[in-house]
Amino acid sequence: MIDPTSSLRDELDRVGEWIVRYFEHPDSYRVMPQVRPGDVVAALPAHPPEIGEPFDAILADFEQIIVPATTHWNHPRFFAYFATSAAPAAIAAEALAATLDVKAMLWRTSPAATELEEVTMRWLGELLGLPPAWTGIIYDTASIAGFTALAAAREALDLAIREEGMIGRALPPLRIYITQETHSHVEKAAIALGIGQRNVVRVPCDDAFCMRVDALRACIEADRAAAMRPLAIVATVGSTSTTSIDPVREIAAVARDFGVWLHVDAAYAGIAAIVPEFRSLLDGVDLADSLVVNPHKWMFVPMDLSVLFLKDEAVVRRAFSLVPEYLTTPEADAVNYMDYGLQLGRRFRALKLWFVLRRFGAEGIRERLRGHIALAQEFAEWVNAEPEWQVLAPHPLSVVCFRYAPAGLDDASLEALNASIMHAVNATGEVFISHTKTNGRYAIRLAIGNLRTQLSDVRRAWEILKREAASAAVPRPR
Amino acid sequence: MIDPTSSLRDELDRVGEWIVRYFEHPDSYRVMPQVRPGDVVAALPAHPPEIGEPFDAILADFEQIIVPATTHWNHPRFFAYFATSAAPAAIAAEALAATLDVKAMLWRTSPAATELEEVTMRWLGELLGLPPAWTGIIYDTASIAGFTALAAAREALDLAIREEGMIGRALPPLRIYITQETHSHVEKAAIALGIGQRNVVRVPCDDAFCMRVDALRACIEADRAAAMRPLAIVATVGSTSTTSIDPVREIAAVARDFGVWLHVDAAYAGIAAIVPEFRSLLDGVDLADSLVVNPHKWMFVPMDLSVLFLKDEAVVRRAFSLVPEYLTTPEADAVNYMDYGLQLGRRFRALKLWFVLRRFGAEGIRERLRGHIALAQEFAEWVNAEPEWQVLAPHPLSVVCFRYAPAGLDDASLEALNASIMHAVNATGEVFISHTKTNGRYAIRLAIGNLRTQLSDVRRAWEILKREAASAAVPRPR
Repeated sequence: MIDPTSSLRDELDRVGEWIVRYFEHPDSYRVMPQVRPGDVVAALPAHPPEIGEPFDAILADFEQIIVPATTHWNHPRFFAYFATSAAPAAIAAEALAATLDVKAMLWRTSPAATELEEVTMRWLGELLGLPPAWTGIIYDTASIAGFTALAAAREALDLAIREEGMIGRALPPLRIYITQETHSHVEKAAIALGIGQRNVVRVPCDDAFCMRVDALRACIEADRAAAMRPLAIVATVGSTSTTSIDPVREIAAVARDFGVWLHVDAAYAGIAAIVPEFRSLLDGVDLADSLVVNPHKWMFVPMDLSVLFLKDEAVVRRAFSLVPEYLTTPEADAVNYMDYGLQLGRRFRALKLWFVLRRFGAEGIRERLRGHIALAQEFAEWVNAEPEWQVLAPHPLSVVCFRYAPAGLDDASLEALNASIMHAVNATGEVFISHTKTNGRYAIRLAIGNLRTQLSDVRRAWEILKREAASAAVPRPR
Repeated sequence: MIDPTSSLRDELDRVGEWIVRYFEHPDSYRVMPQVRPGDVVAALPAHPPEIGEPFDAILADFEQIIVPATTHWNHPRFFAYFATSAAPAAIAAEALAATLDVKAMLWRTSPAATELEEVTMRWLGELLGLPPAWTGIIYDTASIAGFTALAAAREALDLAIREEGMIGRALPPLRIYITQETHSHVEKAAIALGIGQRNVVRVPCDDAFCMRVDALRACIEADRAAAMRPLAIVATVGSTSTTSIDPVREIAAVARDFGVWLHVDAAYAGIAAIVPEFRSLLDGVDLADSLVVNPHKWMFVPMDLSVLFLKDEAVVRRAFSLVPEYLTTPEADAVNYMDYGLQLGRRFRALKLWFVLRRFGAEGIRERLRGHIALAQEFAEWVNAEPEWQVLAPHPLSVVCFRYAPAGLDDASLEALNASIMHAVNATGEVFISHTKTNGRYAIRLAIGNLRTQLSDVRRAWEILKREAASAAVPRPR
C-alpha cells in the first residue's frame, strides 16, 4: 500500500513546479473554457477509488481535466464581475496556513492566528483611515460579514430577539433600507434573519445610481408613521453593478437622526481608500456602525478573506456568543473569535493578508490600484470617443459599464445586440467580460483588478469588442 | 522597489522546504505554546509597512514569531477537542486552489470546481452509504451547514417567512428539539433565524447521553397541544462532548409521525461510517432530511470543508436563491452553488477532498480510522484498569472522557483536582488535552484523530496524566 504521508517533499515540489509554470503564462489558457455542463463529471470516475493512487496520477488528472475546465481568474484578460488575482506570497501563505491547520476558534487553540488577526486588522484599519477604536474581524465572505452586521443591528435594538425569537410577540416590523444597486447578500440576510423580503425597502436612486438621501428620509418617516421600526440602512461604496457610491456622510446624518444602524458595504471599493486621492471614498464612514471591505477582491489575497469593521464589537458578541463547557478556557483576557459569528472553527486567514501587506507594502498596493483605475479610465475614454458606443454609468474606479448603441435601435434591440456581442467576445476565449443592467438598460461590464493586466490586455479587449460588434447581426431599426 | 510578483519560484521553494522540515518533526514543538495573551501583538509592529519587504524577512518572522506562538494541531500528542491533521496531498491541493483562486459561485465562473464538487459529493455519499438520490453540498463549517439545514427546514414549512418575515403574523412559535449534548451551533442558528433560544427544546438524555425518544415524543406532543409548531429535530451522531450517538432510526420515526424535519449532525463521527464495522453509525439516516459530516475533522482535509447532504436540495434553493441581473447566465442546465446558502463566493474546496480520496483511497482512510478507534479503546482500558481513575462516558469511537477520582472526594473537589491535572499536563507542552462536563461531572477528554499519532504517543499522555495526578494537591475528603 502506498503511504500517502511519506512523500510530502516530492508532492510539494511537483505542485510548486506546476504553479510556477502556470503563472509564467496564465494567458496561454482560454479565459473561459470550452466546456459544457456535465463534461467534467463525465470525464471522472463514477465511484471513489478503493486503493490509494500515486500523486502523479492525481496531478495529471488535475492538469488534463480540471485546469482545462477552469475559468481562469488569473488570466490578464479576465474582466468579468470583479477581476481579482492572488499575490504569489499569499499563495505561499495559504500553503503555510493549510500546514498549520489551526482551528482559530479560541485564543488557546491558535494564539498566533488570533493575535495576527488583531495586528493585521489594526494595520488595515489604519491604511483605510478608520477610527483607531474600531475593531476589525475576519470572515470568509462579505455575505457572512454583512449578515453578521445585520444580526448585530437586530441585537442592538434590545428587543430580546436572541432569547424570545420574533414570533408571537408585540414587535414592530423591522425595516432595512437599501437601493436597487445594493448587493443581494443583504436581502439574503433579511430572509435568513426572519425580517422578510417585504421589509427590505428599496430607496430610489439618483441618475448616478446612488441612494437619494431625501428619499431615504421619507421612507424612514413613512415607516415610523406606520409603526414600523428601522433596523438598518445599508449604504454601498462601489456597488457591484456600476461601482456607484452612496453619499455615506449624508446617509449617516439620517441614521443619526433616527437612531438607525448604518452598515457600509465597501467590499470592492473600500480597499481603494488606502490610496490618498481615493481616501474620500470612505468619507463619513466614521459615523457608521459597521463596514465591510474584501481584501480578497482588490488586495491580491486569494479567496476567502472579508473584513467587518465595527464601531462596537461588543454587540456582535452579544448577538452570537455561546460558550459550551468544552470550550471554556482559563485565559480570561484573550479574544476568542468564535464569539463573533455563526462559525465556530476558523481558518488562519490573517496569515495571507499579513504576507501581502508586508510583501507589497502600502505603496506597492497603492501603485497597483492606481494602475487599475487609470486603465479603466483610459478604456472609458476609448468608448466615449466612438459615436456608436455609450458609457452607461459613472466609472469612478476600475469598472466601466457600456454598450454598443448604433443609432435608431430601442433598448430591447440593444439588449439583444449587446448580449450577443458579449457572448461572441467570451466565446473567443481571449477575453472574459460580464454584464449588468443600468436603469433597465443592458450594459457590458469591463472590470479591472488583476495584478497581471496591462494596457495591451485592455486594448485587446477593446479590439475584440469592436470586431464582434461590427460583425454582429444588427437588428433592423423598429 | 521590490516586485512582489516576480519571485514566485523562490517563494514557493522556501515555503515548501519549511513545510517539509515542519512535518519531519512536528513533535519537536510544544503542543500548546508558552505565550500569554498579547505576546504576539507586542512582538509585531504597530503600523503596516510602507515599502514592500523581501520574502525572507516575512518568512523569518513567521518562523520566529508565529510558529512558536502556535498551538500545533499537527503534533502527534494533540489530543484536545477533536484531534485533526491535514494530509500532505491536501496541503498541496490547497496551494493549487489558492493559485486558481476561482470564485465558485456560478458554473461559468468555475466549471471544474462546480463539477468536481458534484463528483466528490457522490463519492463521499457512496462511501457513507447514503441514498444515491441525496445531494451533497460543500460549506465552510458545520455551523454554516447546520444553519443552512435549519433555514431549509423553516422554508419547508411553507409559512412565507422568506417573503413576509416572522413579525406581526399569525405564526405559531417554531420549536427545535435538541439535547444538552447538541453542538452549540444549533442554538446559534436558532438565534440568527429569529426562532429564539427559548424555542430550542432540550430533550432529556439517557445515561449514555443519548436523546430519549419517549421524551422527544412527549415534548413534541406537549408543544403541539400548546399550539406550537415543531420546526426540526436535531439528532447527533458523535456529540462533541462525549461522542454519544442519538438513536437516529427511532428519532426518524417520531419525525415522520409528526411531519418534522430531521437533521443529523454527524460532523465528527459520520466519517467513520465509511468503515464497514461502523456503518451502523448512520443507521436510519436515510430517513432523515439532512446530514452534516466534516471531512476537515476526521478525513485529513485541512480546515475548512463541511458537507451538508440533503434529501431534497430544492428546498435549500427555495430558501436562499436570489439572482441579481449581473449573475444571470446562459447555462440553464448548470448547478450554480451560490443558490445554496448565504455565501455567494466560494473557494474551490472540492479539490483537497478529491486529492485525499484518491491519494488514500477508501481503504487508506478506513485503515487510519480503525487505528484511531483502536488507540482510544486501548487508552480506555488503561483508565479502567486503574482503581483511582474513572471512565465517565461510553467511548464508541476515538474520544475518551475520564477523571482521576481518588476515593472520598465529592464532584466539586474532583472538578478542581482534574482541572488542575489538565492544566499541569498541558503546561508540560508535551501533550494537549481538553475537558468537558458529563452530567455535571468534570471530565478530561482525550481525542485521537491525527495521522501521526502512534501508540507511544497515547502511552506518553497516560504517563504524564498519572504523574501529574500523583503530584497534584489532592484536597482533603470532606
